[in-house]
Amino acid sequence: MRTAFYISDGTAITAEVFGHALLTLFPAQFEHVTIPFVETTDMAEQVKQRINDRYKTTGQRPLIFQTFVDDALRQIINSSDGICYDFLNAFVEPIQRELGVAPVPKTHRTHSIHEQTYDFRIDAVNFALANDDGSNLKNYNQADIILVGVSRSGKTPTSLYLALQYGIKAANYPFVEEDMEQLRLPEVLKRNKAKLFGLTITPERLSQIREQRRANSRYASLRQCQLELAEVEKLYQREQIPFLNSTHLSIEEISAKIIAKTGLKRHKY
Amino acid sequence: MRTAFYISDGTAITAEVFGHALLTLFPAQFEHVTIPFVETTDMAEQVKQRINDRYKTTGQRPLIFQTFVDDALRQIINSSDGICYDFLNAFVEPIQRELGVAPVPKTHRTHSIHEQTYDFRIDAVNFALANDDGSNLKNYNQADIILVGVSRSGKTPTSLYLALQYGIKAANYPFVEEDMEQLRLPEVLKRNKAKLFGLTITPERLSQIREQRRANSRYASLRQCQLELAEVEKLYQREQIPFLNSTHLSIEEISAKIIAKTGLKRHKY
Repeated sequence: MRTAFYISDGTAITAEVFGHALLTLFPAQFEHVTIPFVETTDMAEQVKQRINDRYKTTGQRPLIFQTFVDDALRQIINSSDGICYDFLNAFVEPIQRELGVAPVPKTHRTHSIHEQTYDFRIDAVNFALANDDGSNLKNYNQADIILVGVSRSGKTPTSLYLALQYGIKAANYPFVEEDMEQLRLPEVLKRNKAKLFGLTITPERLSQIREQRRANSRYASLRQCQLELAEVEKLYQREQIPFLNSTHLSIEEISAKIIAKTGLKRHKY
Repeated sequence: MRTAFYISDGTAITAEVFGHALLTLFPAQFEHVTIPFVETTDMAEQVKQRINDRYKTTGQRPLIFQTFVDDALRQIINSSDGICYDFLNAFVEPIQRELGVAPVPKTHRTHSIHEQTYDFRIDAVNFALANDDGSNLKNYNQADIILVGVSRSGKTPTSLYLALQYGIKAANYPFVEEDMEQLRLPEVLKRNKAKLFGLTITPERLSQIREQRRANSRYASLRQCQLELAEVEKLYQREQIPFLNSTHLSIEEISAKIIAKTGLKRHKY
């Protein structure tokens, strides 16, 4: 199996995203090795040795996705037996030409605590946790968005992703069984109606997810899921709450669609 | 101000990471516009129009970071007045040559529910939430790692990031004031000692963070923070629990360092 190395003087998250986007295009299996925080020439030499050893053992040149900012470190990795795909280096020059500004190489520009928006993101995570599942109703005036939906329709993981990735403060409010008889918007949601965004899901998928939580319960039964979802979707329509169906979507996709639909301000790019 | 567009037939997350890594190298301000889920030629034509309009209004050609898999859609964007930086296209051919395998272009390969590891990540998020802050001690046998440390040392956001990004099941356990008199490992942690990883932080930073929570409290006082941290660090040393100081680190950096130190198995690359 071919080995792919993701190497950086920082977290190597960018190198991973970059390599992953490319390698998933190919119908092949890879062994993945991430080596973050390679910050000295000594460490870079050790990594070079690992790459060369891997080549010797497997007879196949490893693929190297690297995002060094330091040129000396980059050169050491480039001199290994791996094949280096260096997208920063490939695109810096054309962008420099277009902007007419020289780059100012600096390590830890991305994914570090020094990013301007870092505190926004941590505040947003704490907000999401404190306002999960209908707790802390009085904080809704601070929310950027309030996700609503039945239990297990994807509200909580989506709230956390919006916080971590984008610094968006997302509260979430569950419509529970007891509300279903005559489903209306509670006062606290009415007062924040412009912030509401609904999630829905197919009854089949919801029942499956709930079964994992409470097997053979009324809560997980297809009938109960059908009933709750029908009520909630009627409410969305009647109150003109924007919503989307999360059945076939990842939390990344749900989040990106919510932002695109609502025009929510993001604190991180 | 120059405009940077991030455009894709998927979430555009990869396009954002790619563009962000490059643009942060330059001492310049940009207006950022993300347009995800451009899935039809009609939509692509509309986006092309937006790019051209932006050029007309500003007199500066927008920078376009795009990750289309569909060639027809990519061509439409490429024919706009923006300057397209297309890293997938730039690197696919060299990788194809090296692997001797043709790519199989498919949309939604990344950041979708169809990724093999998606369920791991959602399970891990639920696990982190259920095992936050010392709740649910009996689940520790299912944890991949147990983060320990004083209140507000970064355990919870790190647990969530490990779950969301890597599918790693992280529980966390707080050492609270009442334990400090004679700090020892509780039985439940002793039994899972190989899974423990400690966080620490400087007393000054901890006090600052706690002040935001409970201003002018004993809990937030520098003296109390010093006392707790000294006790906890002694415990880490005595019990040989690996630990790191989170003061100057982002949750991305803490997570990457924990994985590098422990060799934890990741479920996502």
